[in-house]
Amino acid sequence: MTENPHPVAHEALEPAAKAWFERLRDRICTEFEAIEDAWAGARPAGRFERSAWSRPTDDGQEGGGGVMSVMKGRVFEKVGVNVSTVWGEFSPDFRGQIPGAAEDPRFWASGISLVAHMQSPLVPAAHFNTRMLVTTKGWFGGGGDLTPMRLDTEQAKEDAADFHAAFRAACDRHDPAYYETFKAWCDRYFYLPHRQEPRGAGGIFFDQHATGNAEADFAFARDVGEAFLDVYTRIIRRRMNQVWSAAEREHQLVRRGRYVEFNLIHDRGTLFGLKTGGNVEAILMSLPPEVRWP
Amino acid sequence: MTENPHPVAHEALEPAAKAWFERLRDRICTEFEAIEDAWAGARPAGRFERSAWSRPTDDGQEGGGGVMSVMKGRVFEKVGVNVSTVWGEFSPDFRGQIPGAAEDPRFWASGISLVAHMQSPLVPAAHFNTRMLVTTKGWFGGGGDLTPMRLDTEQAKEDAADFHAAFRAACDRHDPAYYETFKAWCDRYFYLPHRQEPRGAGGIFFDQHATGNAEADFAFARDVGEAFLDVYTRIIRRRMNQVWSAAEREHQLVRRGRYVEFNLIHDRGTLFGLKTGGNVEAILMSLPPEVRWP
Repeated sequence: MTENPHPVAHEALEPAAKAWFERLRDRICTEFEAIEDAWAGARPAGRFERSAWSRPTDDGQEGGGGVMSVMKGRVFEKVGVNVSTVWGEFSPDFRGQIPGAAEDPRFWASGISLVAHMQSPLVPAAHFNTRMLVTTKGWFGGGGDLTPMRLDTEQAKEDAADFHAAFRAACDRHDPAYYETFKAWCDRYFYLPHRQEPRGAGGIFFDQHATGNAEADFAFARDVGEAFLDVYTRIIRRRMNQVWSAAEREHQLVRRGRYVEFNLIHDRGTLFGLKTGGNVEAILMSLPPEVRWP
Repeated sequence: MTENPHPVAHEALEPAAKAWFERLRDRICTEFEAIEDAWAGARPAGRFERSAWSRPTDDGQEGGGGVMSVMKGRVFEKVGVNVSTVWGEFSPDFRGQIPGAAEDPRFWASGISLVAHMQSPLVPAAHFNTRMLVTTKGWFGGGGDLTPMRLDTEQAKEDAADFHAAFRAACDRHDPAYYETFKAWCDRYFYLPHRQEPRGAGGIFFDQHATGNAEADFAFARDVGEAFLDVYTRIIRRRMNQVWSAAEREHQLVRRGRYVEFNLIHDRGTLFGLKTGGNVEAILMSLPPEVRWP
């Protein structure tokens, strides 16, 4: 992170950032519903259901809120796409941890967060998010990562390679150093120390990203979103009609346990949300619909 | 906790404590297998399978180990009973948190830990453990709690009342203040703040328990074990042949998600174990075999 001398630049971007996250959500939902329609099987195609939530504040002020879009379909076993735009003041406990909040606790934050758990064990699960934060400083954060159920098959390697290539291309359009830096950050972050295992095949992860040019950083965040939407839908479409076995499905349900372990033990975003009174349903939307610890 | 002036008393109890935990494990396994045999259904009765593990230490010294006993049966969907006896030195990070370890980091610990997840949503899940710790001080800890899938039915209330009555009787034989103190501790401990829900119907919980009479404290720990074995087998036997619906089963799988959330987000024992390089399989044996977050 570079110190951002122009926090006000992010403030001016607030309406555009919020609108972008919501437009991206709409496009993702449309593409994912089209995938449901395109599936060759007999069960009915899934559709997203939306539910709005508002953020209660201690003193009864308006603090924003969000919309959860959830689809339980025939390709997507459970996919949630959450957009939220919230504002208020960080509690004294957290001010020291948030850039720019020690001076003035007020914040504004908007973002999109997506987790997809798939019916087929041959289609990787995925996570994606981007957000813009504004305090007395301003920055973007986000990333995406892919969780194939096996890392060692030719198909999984091909999917992971394409996923990484898409993010590399998005990164390279902005800075030749981004991809390696953000890939390494992702590898460090999505790691289960108690299992000594990576959560999946990685991707990119960035936070407190502020180069000093807020417009350019916003353009980078948008490109990351575009890259995710494009590559993940391609991966799903080429895998979703492949036949899988009961043993592969069972293995998928066990691997999902690792996903739960990561999110509940290690994921800072999940724990931060739960411990600061966030919307429980929206935060835990990431948990898989069915899991086994045999 | 009362300061224990006779740590050496616990040291003298080490062989007896280890032997008691292992004998209790044997009796529990025998009773649970008898329950499997007594079930009216057609599937084959479950049997415990044991696997021994040893505790690696950084410097290649012997550090003890344990035995996991796991049964996947027709009444018990998954039940694990772990006994372990370990010794060594607390790492510098932990010495300040453990009574008596700041002065001398050496410790000895032995205990039993049990978690049962049942096929029937009408049979409550249960957790039980007891342990003896010896540093320059010595103490017992443990407890048991019941997790019915519903708290509001007449049956669940009857089960919870009997469970509590059994622990109350065990406590009252030792000190009339124990039950209320340890019940309240259990209620505080097994609580999900992010859901504002208790994990279940409670029970008792005690830690760093040292009255100054190690023999008496050991006798109390034994009585807690006896009480658990007696009351939980009675509860299982009266519920296991009742017919349940698919909706009740689905509800059970969702409630189990709360159990996972508690163990991975809040349970100090689980997190302590995972973060100090404990045996992952033994620690996560507590997780339910099948779970849903719909």
